[in-house]
Amino acid sequence: MWCKKSFIYKFKNFFNLTIQKKYSVIASVLENANIGENAEVRGWVKNLRVQKELIFADVNDGSCAQKLQIIIPKELKTDALTYGSSVHIRGKLSKSPRGQLELVAENVKVLGPCVVLDGYPFNPRTTHPPEYIRQYIHLRSRTNFLSSILRVRSSVTKHIHDFYSSKKYLNVHTPILTSNDCEGAGEVFKVQPDCEDTIKAMMQDGKDKDTVYFGSKTYLTVSGQLHLEAICRGMGNVYTLGPTFRAENARSRLHLSEFYMLEAELAFCYSLEQLQNHIEELLKYIFIETRHTNEADLSLIDKENSKPPAWLQKKFATLTYDEAQDILKKKKVVNTENGLNKEQELALVDYCNGAPVFIVRWPKDLKSFYMKECQDDNTKVEALDLLAPITGEIVGGSLREDDYDRLKSKLPSDKLNWYLELRKFGNIPTGGYGLGLERLLQTMCGITNIKDTLPFPRWPHNCSM
Amino acid sequence: MWCKKSFIYKFKNFFNLTIQKKYSVIASVLENANIGENAEVRGWVKNLRVQKELIFADVNDGSCAQKLQIIIPKELKTDALTYGSSVHIRGKLSKSPRGQLELVAENVKVLGPCVVLDGYPFNPRTTHPPEYIRQYIHLRSRTNFLSSILRVRSSVTKHIHDFYSSKKYLNVHTPILTSNDCEGAGEVFKVQPDCEDTIKAMMQDGKDKDTVYFGSKTYLTVSGQLHLEAICRGMGNVYTLGPTFRAENARSRLHLSEFYMLEAELAFCYSLEQLQNHIEELLKYIFIETRHTNEADLSLIDKENSKPPAWLQKKFATLTYDEAQDILKKKKVVNTENGLNKEQELALVDYCNGAPVFIVRWPKDLKSFYMKECQDDNTKVEALDLLAPITGEIVGGSLREDDYDRLKSKLPSDKLNWYLELRKFGNIPTGGYGLGLERLLQTMCGITNIKDTLPFPRWPHNCSM
Repeated sequence: MWCKKSFIYKFKNFFNLTIQKKYSVIASVLENANIGENAEVRGWVKNLRVQKELIFADVNDGSCAQKLQIIIPKELKTDALTYGSSVHIRGKLSKSPRGQLELVAENVKVLGPCVVLDGYPFNPRTTHPPEYIRQYIHLRSRTNFLSSILRVRSSVTKHIHDFYSSKKYLNVHTPILTSNDCEGAGEVFKVQPDCEDTIKAMMQDGKDKDTVYFGSKTYLTVSGQLHLEAICRGMGNVYTLGPTFRAENARSRLHLSEFYMLEAELAFCYSLEQLQNHIEELLKYIFIETRHTNEADLSLIDKENSKPPAWLQKKFATLTYDEAQDILKKKKVVNTENGLNKEQELALVDYCNGAPVFIVRWPKDLKSFYMKECQDDNTKVEALDLLAPITGEIVGGSLREDDYDRLKSKLPSDKLNWYLELRKFGNIPTGGYGLGLERLLQTMCGITNIKDTLPFPRWPHNCSM
Repeated sequence: MWCKKSFIYKFKNFFNLTIQKKYSVIASVLENANIGENAEVRGWVKNLRVQKELIFADVNDGSCAQKLQIIIPKELKTDALTYGSSVHIRGKLSKSPRGQLELVAENVKVLGPCVVLDGYPFNPRTTHPPEYIRQYIHLRSRTNFLSSILRVRSSVTKHIHDFYSSKKYLNVHTPILTSNDCEGAGEVFKVQPDCEDTIKAMMQDGKDKDTVYFGSKTYLTVSGQLHLEAICRGMGNVYTLGPTFRAENARSRLHLSEFYMLEAELAFCYSLEQLQNHIEELLKYIFIETRHTNEADLSLIDKENSKPPAWLQKKFATLTYDEAQDILKKKKVVNTENGLNKEQELALVDYCNGAPVFIVRWPKDLKSFYMKECQDDNTKVEALDLLAPITGEIVGGSLREDDYDRLKSKLPSDKLNWYLELRKFGNIPTGGYGLGLERLLQTMCGITNIKDTLPFPRWPHNCSM
């Protein structure tokens, strides 16, 4: 019998693998350490105040938003100890006159100096605007603003995995490369080998360069939905979280060429309400959990975040597409095209007191071929958009057409015969959605420009590093 | 004050959001349910045995490897109830003569029929070989073999996130699109918009098509390491788990054009031993946790997996590159080129009784520009490969060159000036590694062909769906 606990016990004792100093990460020091204990921390100097006998250094190591105050006796000061430098400090924990935990240094080692005059773009005691910070993409995680966002993003990712795991959803790695061109909508990137020798070696008669490597033209994915549906029809509830791409020439504060999408497909999903309840539960779970793990980060990113949004305690509103149009007419927020534009989306959120709102029962013509027609009105489909503050549309979803013949009549391409075939053998009713991770972070943190929600943003004319 | 528990309590009671039937997932029924309880399950018929008065159906819903046996009184049988069909069954839990939990059906509804004669590729009571299953990529998650692998893959992913989270590592989403061509090695995919109108609209004088969208030639990433290093130098320990790409014309059972890589960068990492201990701890953690969450899946994939590998309880061996070459000479496993080929890698694993082995202190000429030279021998670098059964190389890592001038002299391209600059401001010593997720799954499960470790494999001439 394979006994877990005793084995791991033996394993830890035998190898003694994790030789980690106690409290070496500042987040743990601030959480768990006691006055009078010895401690050893490493990190970057975020602030330096030189007084007569003492130097006060605020050190942060990226593990949390907070900084640990270090008291450095003047004799331990070196010229290399400057703002931005990396340090290794040994000392004893003490309490400041204000009751704060601080570390009285007994040994200070500067690991890497940092000379602001030599081109370091950030200055002490300065809050740089996001546009400025964005110019230094390789260094910007050293700023309070971006490091807090990256910690929130990492936590949100963790909470997403925990949410689905607790519900026994399967995490599926849907592919980035696909021969499905997404109905030929044209906003896709195509992919081919960069090496002419590889292309020559693989070239067959009558083929063009675009098809030579994979045998068919290949694109970067715009959605993992169709692939998720295939796995869902064999294994039940599934989700995927990964990069998706759009080759649009759009430069708004809401658009990226590469962004993360969370997509899920619910097996045995019979009604849009079932889908709505699930999405609402997911969003509230992420918001609540992140407020607890990253309270300090959220406040640091935007002071408005110090209070939880009121809508967390209320049920999301639901409007049909027709009801939404009536409201917009009354409010005189008009649109010459079909569908909802960004201004209208935000007006509807405003109408719902700044809370997220589901728009359901969309005209069939405005939505995709795979969406299920409403039983009582075949000009409408069982689709939803969830609109949220700051970004407008944050989630899009629907029940999927599960009737083989109806789907066949709407299929946009022969290439999707495999998708049609999923309905032929042991089909089940499903519904699913896609949620833009960056837009979620915008709404959650109050970030107006989407380029500040991820470590390495890509948009037209911008793919540095 | 924002009080979590009471809020969530109110939240759950107020909305009653998760209206999930008790025990509706078969994994939960098998784990938690009691004889005599009512139950309701949904899934696919994996086996059907018709006897005089009763029908025995094995139903699986993807939540676990096990099937639930359903006892169906003959009067509830319909023609649509066949192998492969999807069903919804209500009944009472009972115990079989052999002591197994089974469900005595009171109501049987066939949701989606499945007619094998109409082209369904899988047959009852047949174990199809992986090569056959691979032809039906959109349906193959219905087979026992592939669904078990996908569950193991999902679990391994979860354990990976849990491992780093418990150590407070930051999860960084490194970009897929990059202007870094990986030292011009040539095995990269290039990316451009597919739409001629977009290209025309963005075209500037003197630009070629390859650079028009992003302003510079853009590739699919081969590694997130350099990007991780940037964040590590602002925020400490970091990791990334995501797709990477190689445009090689390689069709071996160990190669894919798109595969997942786990990469981590350790802050304040001073020695290769520190890195080795961390990698060993990670691998053993994943193996041990997955054996517990997916014991039945592992046995189903390969009977050899019913016992844990002996090496889990031993420390990994370490050989220097020179020692390894001496051993290979004695064993007469020769190689006309430099480095280690696959045969040699597996011979070294064999030499270590089938256990993983670290190969360290590599000749500088065989490794990358960013690796740190050994202090006592500048013809060698502080690099490691971890070799494992079935696949050979499974992890590659190194300490990173942290000396500004030495790195500058080795930098392969001006495009990497940002990488050099990381050493100029508050630099810290780091080390890191990359682990191929698919190769890990091969070693863990005993899967000889890498194409069976992921849901949608891509390799030359193969990118269907």
